[in-house]
Amino acid sequence: MEKKPMHCTIVVRLYNDEKCFGPGVAELLEHIDEEKSIRKATAAMGMAYSKAWRIIKAAEAVLGFPLILSSTGGAGGGGAALTDRAKQLLKNFRTLEQDTRAFAEQRFAELFDEEK
Amino acid sequence: MEKKPMHCTIVVRLYNDEKCFGPGVAELLEHIDEEKSIRKATAAMGMAYSKAWRIIKAAEAVLGFPLILSSTGGAGGGGAALTDRAKQLLKNFRTLEQDTRAFAEQRFAELFDEEK
Repeated sequence: MEKKPMHCTIVVRLYNDEKCFGPGVAELLEHIDEEKSIRKATAAMGMAYSKAWRIIKAAEAVLGFPLILSSTGGAGGGGAALTDRAKQLLKNFRTLEQDTRAFAEQRFAELFDEEK
Repeated sequence: MEKKPMHCTIVVRLYNDEKCFGPGVAELLEHIDEEKSIRKATAAMGMAYSKAWRIIKAAEAVLGFPLILSSTGGAGGGGAALTDRAKQLLKNFRTLEQDTRAFAEQRFAELFDEEK
């Protein structure tokens, strides 16, 4: 069977002293932003609540600022929202990813013209 | 203690039907090219010979062409060299990586000016 043409993928991560942001926490934050709840976000992703909590707390510790505003109580059991800095970071990260992916795909096409 | 300024890293991988080339096999091929021997290359990298062999054979299977020319016997126990296609692939991959990294770092600087 004919193989698919070769293509490239990229993964972008942000570091300060250590890894502080990447595709995993970005996806989690997007789900929280959409669901307005960590519990609903993790259910949508098939991720354990405790794991989501660990990911968020680890990222906040390394970044040095909060990502999530949460309120407890009420009929719905409280909700969660992204902080303004989390929204800005997420937006910039996704823009960096998209632009880098577009660049890499273009450069790949130039370099690997004969390999495909 | 002050954290280091934030920076970005990128990982580039090549896929056809599945992953066929990335930084791990690239580094291994560079060591083989330098040492002219799989055994010496793995010793330099602290990698098991059997692991290197598996990595090479898996990449060759997915790529659909040979990466290594090996000769056995002789006083030195035989040697290994990269095929021409392996050399070309390695060169293109490293160029793609370097150019993509340079682009991402530039774009990061533009986007994250205030976060750093």
